[in-house]
Amino acid sequence: MAITFERDPDRYRHWKLAIDAPVATVTMRVDPDGGLRDDYELKLNSYDLAVDIELADVVARLRFEHPEVKAVVVTGGLDKVFCAGANIQMLAGSTHAHKVNFCKFTNETRSAIEEATAHSGQTWIAAVNGTAAGGGYELALTCDEILLIDDHSSAVSLPEVPLLAVLPGTGGLTRLVDKRFVRRDLADVFATRTEGIKGQQAVDWGLVDAVAPRSRFDDVVRQRALARAADSSRPDGVAGVRLTPLRVDVEPDSLRYDWVTAAIDRDLGAVHLTVRAPEQQEPATPDELHAAGSSAWVLAAARQLDDAVLRLRFNEPEVGTWVLHTTGDVAAVTAAEEVLGRHAEHWLVNEVRLAWTRTLKRLDLSARTLIALVEPGSAFGGVLAELLLAADRSFMLDGQGPDGAAPPPTVRLTAANDGWFPMANGESRLATRSWGRPDALDAARGVLGKDLLAGEATDVGLVTFTPDDIDWHDEIRLTLEERNSFSPDALTGMEANFRFVGPETMETKIFARLTAWQNWIFQRPNAVGPDGALRRFGTGARPTYDRSRV
Amino acid sequence: MAITFERDPDRYRHWKLAIDAPVATVTMRVDPDGGLRDDYELKLNSYDLAVDIELADVVARLRFEHPEVKAVVVTGGLDKVFCAGANIQMLAGSTHAHKVNFCKFTNETRSAIEEATAHSGQTWIAAVNGTAAGGGYELALTCDEILLIDDHSSAVSLPEVPLLAVLPGTGGLTRLVDKRFVRRDLADVFATRTEGIKGQQAVDWGLVDAVAPRSRFDDVVRQRALARAADSSRPDGVAGVRLTPLRVDVEPDSLRYDWVTAAIDRDLGAVHLTVRAPEQQEPATPDELHAAGSSAWVLAAARQLDDAVLRLRFNEPEVGTWVLHTTGDVAAVTAAEEVLGRHAEHWLVNEVRLAWTRTLKRLDLSARTLIALVEPGSAFGGVLAELLLAADRSFMLDGQGPDGAAPPPTVRLTAANDGWFPMANGESRLATRSWGRPDALDAARGVLGKDLLAGEATDVGLVTFTPDDIDWHDEIRLTLEERNSFSPDALTGMEANFRFVGPETMETKIFARLTAWQNWIFQRPNAVGPDGALRRFGTGARPTYDRSRV
Repeated sequence: MAITFERDPDRYRHWKLAIDAPVATVTMRVDPDGGLRDDYELKLNSYDLAVDIELADVVARLRFEHPEVKAVVVTGGLDKVFCAGANIQMLAGSTHAHKVNFCKFTNETRSAIEEATAHSGQTWIAAVNGTAAGGGYELALTCDEILLIDDHSSAVSLPEVPLLAVLPGTGGLTRLVDKRFVRRDLADVFATRTEGIKGQQAVDWGLVDAVAPRSRFDDVVRQRALARAADSSRPDGVAGVRLTPLRVDVEPDSLRYDWVTAAIDRDLGAVHLTVRAPEQQEPATPDELHAAGSSAWVLAAARQLDDAVLRLRFNEPEVGTWVLHTTGDVAAVTAAEEVLGRHAEHWLVNEVRLAWTRTLKRLDLSARTLIALVEPGSAFGGVLAELLLAADRSFMLDGQGPDGAAPPPTVRLTAANDGWFPMANGESRLATRSWGRPDALDAARGVLGKDLLAGEATDVGLVTFTPDDIDWHDEIRLTLEERNSFSPDALTGMEANFRFVGPETMETKIFARLTAWQNWIFQRPNAVGPDGALRRFGTGARPTYDRSRV
Repeated sequence: MAITFERDPDRYRHWKLAIDAPVATVTMRVDPDGGLRDDYELKLNSYDLAVDIELADVVARLRFEHPEVKAVVVTGGLDKVFCAGANIQMLAGSTHAHKVNFCKFTNETRSAIEEATAHSGQTWIAAVNGTAAGGGYELALTCDEILLIDDHSSAVSLPEVPLLAVLPGTGGLTRLVDKRFVRRDLADVFATRTEGIKGQQAVDWGLVDAVAPRSRFDDVVRQRALARAADSSRPDGVAGVRLTPLRVDVEPDSLRYDWVTAAIDRDLGAVHLTVRAPEQQEPATPDELHAAGSSAWVLAAARQLDDAVLRLRFNEPEVGTWVLHTTGDVAAVTAAEEVLGRHAEHWLVNEVRLAWTRTLKRLDLSARTLIALVEPGSAFGGVLAELLLAADRSFMLDGQGPDGAAPPPTVRLTAANDGWFPMANGESRLATRSWGRPDALDAARGVLGKDLLAGEATDVGLVTFTPDDIDWHDEIRLTLEERNSFSPDALTGMEANFRFVGPETMETKIFARLTAWQNWIFQRPNAVGPDGALRRFGTGARPTYDRSRV
């Protein structure tokens, strides 16, 4: 059954959202029967993808629909349990591909929480009112402050290594040492201590920021939330923008949104993903953007592309190549994005920019080959030129198409390409592409705003190949056929190394290094074999390990 | 059969070393029958671990034995072939553990080549006088300049992804984009093009620095080598220091060198690795150090520890915990290392410091748990305190031992711990341990030179646990038993994430990120399954791939 990613806040099964401005409280109370599959029960606030899809929805709606919220408290809705982490039976029964995709999505949600704190003026605070184990503590780690109840039993823990023979899968190891600066030997002890650490010792080791007894816990949480809210840049007295349901026609081989379409070519193992430029006057001021809300192209296109990326990732694993197209009037794109440049400080403009940032990061992090095609009628300008820059390689037609009807295609960089949408490595896609060659970056910056023909785009290093109309179709077809003949695993590994050139950040460490180790471990018999820890967990039988160290 | 790591330059089977000062020429001419196993032939200058062990020996000897060498040219000794990379049949017939260990060792040799260029005044230049494929081109990538013969047939290539469904395993992907700054889309094209790229295009894409026709090739290489030699900091007119054969008694459960012993406890899956402090007057000046040569403790201990680490890595994969001990007089250690601090600019002092740097990095990169024990009679001071700082956790006895005979143990940091031996992340182990907590680093710096008792060492964050003599033995035993009960894979992944806190470098990218992806791919059926590319290579049958993208 296809997985979908939109949720209706009136029908959340696992989370409760309560707003008492400027603070929102997000309470996890997982419905044991509300998982994606029926071979496991989500006991003790353990989660699966269904739970996290709702959380991602909460994070997104808080930012667009609730400008009045300046601090977010996440807490547990069960007695003595904050969150028990990812459900083990779910993991044990999942394919390798699902485990990897699940971890990637939950990691993206965790990054969105950190982004809300860092860039949206919505500081997340974990009110750990019971035990937080594994992914539960990792959720707390994404918050800017962690407050732990001091009741002589509630602990934080990362028991994955000793109990399950896998790593904490949502950034926990990295955040311990690179975000909270826990000393590495203490981190080692903590991550191998099944029962975790509680009370003052958790404060002393830097695992949490403060503890408070049950009698004062809610007060302390509220005080901290109000204190952080007082520092927020969010405006007062403005209404939010409702994230209206996406319209999408789903067919076996296609997705059709208003501005985005996906058309699968199963023979080639490829999907043609097309984003259309706007077709009418788009909002030019923050007020107009606010009035247009979810119907503004600049927000709608991002949401639709994000949804398409997620559906393709989870539901079409064998479609290994995503061919990126754009159509329409490039001037309409750059006109529509102008409001994002002129009013970056406006809360809604900021959120729209961040929505594109997240969506484009999802593209970078998708384990699929990305190939961009610049054809007559395409609109690779400004924000849509990011698709060109995100591609592993690109083709641009040199000259007119065979029918001679359409003018030769052009590409137009704008300020949007020079820093509005940083990658996980903290650099723009343009800077990443020019890494170590500052002259190349300067050359690209020198043509901002110009419509570049194939030769000019080549001169500033923006496109890989520029066939003419005689070679175009053969060259594209051969490339897609060739890509489809390679090992999907080797391509994933190769692309993960080339895409994140240059500096590393906590985010690239989590997505590239920690994830790669976890993917490895998720293949190892010690974890997933019939006698491995994931399969033996809860059976009473101890796992059997091959003791070779690798 | 146990693998050994020392080689006699008079009996190299695969390399020829010719010195015409200031240039050394290292010629690869692999003996097809000289591999470690006999289930493959090393045709066309393909290599296995045996070939790389000799190369590592060449790299080390050039630095110590040949101060007169200021540039090193590496070239191929076969007609039209520079080097074909790692031998495929060898890879196909190797265990996962051997593949991973092989890649790690070859990567360490590649890093040593880059270190020689960067820090020893020996600039490596690749004279690619024939086709350089896969690991062959990766060897060239470690050189500071790559000169390619322009003969209309010799190409550089990384055909691993299309042909073998694995990644180039010795840093090639990272070095393409993070060292040579090849544009990422061109890197993508290059690494999927089986036949590689030759001639001027290789220069244009940044894959090589220059091409020259056969008639001028040797001249161009010589000119470049002499030009680079002219910039070297190496001294003129001094003699080298011979790396004399290591004396080691090898027993089934132990290794005994002059200053290092390894004693295996198979029940605990642990080895006790002990380094002894010097016992007599050690060289105090560079001249004395030069006269003592390989017999100076400060060089001998590093070489012996390095050899022990390699033997344990390859020959004892099931010994998962390395327990680090030191014995002797800490004052003797800090006295012996003084020459390294006072005369850092001296070429031999520099080489000894770099030898320790490499050895300690090997320790960091070993996929084994490292536990340091500070006991009565131990000598964790200065360079030996690095073992304490390298450990995943440490125990220090608080007070006297049960017999009351020996005084309570102490730890002494010196300047050696504050930057002499950077980790792969570019930071000292002390700075890495204090990452994000500058006050902690300042506190540790404040006690340089002092002998710290357990309480004092705890105060400045140097040790993890400080049991007294009543708890000591039980606590150590429980820790070792517990560690031995965990999944070796999960420990490897966890330790790899905790050890490299903070900044990332090309080296950490190669060892942590690229290696993790390669380890994953080395487990995947698309590469290593019966129908996978590694197994099908050379059979005429095409591999069969599971097309799911993960």
